[in-house]
Amino acid sequence: MKTDVAIIGAGPAGLLLGHSLRKAGINAVVLEHRSAERVLSRIRAGILEQVSVSLMDELGLGERMHAEGLPHDGFLLADGERNIRIDLKGLTGQSVMVYGQTELTKDLMDAAPERGLDIIYEAEGVELHDVNSDSPYVTYTKGGKEERLDARFIAGCDGFHGPSRKAFPKDFGVEHEKVYPFGWLGILADVPPCNEELIYASHENGFALASMRSKTRSRYYIQIPLTETLEDWPDDKLWDELAVRLGPEAAANITRGPAIEKSIAPLRSFVFDQLRYGSLFLAGDAAHVVPPTGAKGLNLASSDVAYLSRALIQHFKNGDDSGIDSYSETALARIWKSERFSWSLTMLMHRFPDAGGFDRRMQVAELDYIAQSKAAQTSIAENYIGLPL
Amino acid sequence: MKTDVAIIGAGPAGLLLGHSLRKAGINAVVLEHRSAERVLSRIRAGILEQVSVSLMDELGLGERMHAEGLPHDGFLLADGERNIRIDLKGLTGQSVMVYGQTELTKDLMDAAPERGLDIIYEAEGVELHDVNSDSPYVTYTKGGKEERLDARFIAGCDGFHGPSRKAFPKDFGVEHEKVYPFGWLGILADVPPCNEELIYASHENGFALASMRSKTRSRYYIQIPLTETLEDWPDDKLWDELAVRLGPEAAANITRGPAIEKSIAPLRSFVFDQLRYGSLFLAGDAAHVVPPTGAKGLNLASSDVAYLSRALIQHFKNGDDSGIDSYSETALARIWKSERFSWSLTMLMHRFPDAGGFDRRMQVAELDYIAQSKAAQTSIAENYIGLPL
Repeated sequence: MKTDVAIIGAGPAGLLLGHSLRKAGINAVVLEHRSAERVLSRIRAGILEQVSVSLMDELGLGERMHAEGLPHDGFLLADGERNIRIDLKGLTGQSVMVYGQTELTKDLMDAAPERGLDIIYEAEGVELHDVNSDSPYVTYTKGGKEERLDARFIAGCDGFHGPSRKAFPKDFGVEHEKVYPFGWLGILADVPPCNEELIYASHENGFALASMRSKTRSRYYIQIPLTETLEDWPDDKLWDELAVRLGPEAAANITRGPAIEKSIAPLRSFVFDQLRYGSLFLAGDAAHVVPPTGAKGLNLASSDVAYLSRALIQHFKNGDDSGIDSYSETALARIWKSERFSWSLTMLMHRFPDAGGFDRRMQVAELDYIAQSKAAQTSIAENYIGLPL
Repeated sequence: MKTDVAIIGAGPAGLLLGHSLRKAGINAVVLEHRSAERVLSRIRAGILEQVSVSLMDELGLGERMHAEGLPHDGFLLADGERNIRIDLKGLTGQSVMVYGQTELTKDLMDAAPERGLDIIYEAEGVELHDVNSDSPYVTYTKGGKEERLDARFIAGCDGFHGPSRKAFPKDFGVEHEKVYPFGWLGILADVPPCNEELIYASHENGFALASMRSKTRSRYYIQIPLTETLEDWPDDKLWDELAVRLGPEAAANITRGPAIEKSIAPLRSFVFDQLRYGSLFLAGDAAHVVPPTGAKGLNLASSDVAYLSRALIQHFKNGDDSGIDSYSETALARIWKSERFSWSLTMLMHRFPDAGGFDRRMQVAELDYIAQSKAAQTSIAENYIGLPL
């Protein structure tokens, strides 16, 4: 089989890229090692910046998102004593959209057949070959049969653990990483959210987040030590702790319900500082991971795709390689800034076991300062809605 | 001897407080363990926020400051590749004033006799007594003779190492401290500054600062490891390193000259979280120390004095103790925010020996972000010119 761009991974990055290329008449095939059902069963991010909303709109696939998504004009930073509202709309003129990554992925999957975007699920043992040539190819097995996909380019959209980044030579690109000494315990439940807007809470016990997927589906998280497991957190104990950390006002409005999903995720900052090697490009989590504080992960994949699709279209339509030559540098400039915001909001809002009294006081002083400063609130808001492409 | 307020320390905090009280007709005596010449020989800060300028103006002592001081409407953050100008005036409507602490102290000393502010120099072995009573007193020796000064209140303006903070009970108040793994090597020289505005430079070799005291007197600093001494830094080597760290544009304008003063200062963040015990108050470095990045030290002393003088005047004039009762909390709210700014600018601009690649990248990303964000620049500017009282 032969195509223009072989895309590894049917997450949001791969599917957004595939649809963007197809819209420009460029052929693309997406290889995904899981089934469609497995891809959709992953509960991930739920906050779309304008860059993600615009991509869906430009693809003509934003209808359900606009019908079912919830535009949010602000969010709260809470510290147990007060709520600091970050007025996104008032400070920046823009909002964000609450729409689950699962829903966005489903919209992209559902539209694939009619748009001529081939998605090959359960493509196992994917290997990348000749990536530094003009005729790279991918091998995989599907239903026990060995297959080969030839392409002009390969786009690695296969997440942190995928094979694409590993296809870079060992001495090409540096991995920058920070691992945080805690994880997020998340619960998804079909209950109304405790507040119309998200609450990021910095409590003495640790961080908590009240988020949502819709007006009837809530998503809550608490910071826990990495030594703890799901067994340590039966539902009731988790709901009790959420009520403590989110503060009395939110607690009074929490509706408890059975967990649809409950899981622990470690927090990591990671950047691989080369997004291109020859004919291979990386986009999304394959190249960079942010801690979820600030909701940048999916949106950073979107901005990678915005840069990369434009670059590939320039190549195929105009024979102009300036975009693919500058892709790595251009995308990384925005990635580092998003990494910085996610890191700084994580550092501000969590309890660190090794932090001294002075460090803790700096967190409190920063929240005190943010509470009184329009400039500080604007800085947070403009990062939250997404820096310009 | 008896007075209303015994002030320990004839630095800017003690002298500003003494003059403020005298202006309201309240008696005050300042005890200083050094000679006037020794006090004036200490080369310290040189940037006055509006709070300091206003205090001098309200005292009617701002004439020389306005004649000889240099209003600065902005400063530069440099990183070897570019200069980011923080347009203080454009972003906040306010400026800062370059006027050496030594000059300000001299103006306050010179005006003391005509204002009836007694300053007793070389008052050695100062000890505070009965500070939790309404009749505290201070003992000291002067010219070998034991003396006693009775007062209604004692104001400890005697710096980090002075006796006042040590007069608090052991279990009253907590010391919060952060020591940085480097120092500043400073040089003062009678040469014109290399740039009209200050340059804070974040170079791979370490931080550097191009500052000044006047149009003919320059003050430069570089970050050095705490293991190094003045012997490691002969003048030529220091000038060479300044030229490297400040970048080619500044380097071309550096005028070298003999050092009037050259010294190494460690960097410390320190807050003692109680500013009052009974009849004893702390103000300035006696209660808190900031790293010099951001020029907050002297100005934080000024805001302490603004709060404390108002509170003491309320007490003596109106019998109203609400100000002295809330002094500690009120002053600390501003202190913590200034500590936060000084800490964050220090963390942003210095090289940390134990920082990993990711931490260094966060510094670079923050400068990249600041360079493009008016909100981020405004946040820095409003902290630099001084948060509202």
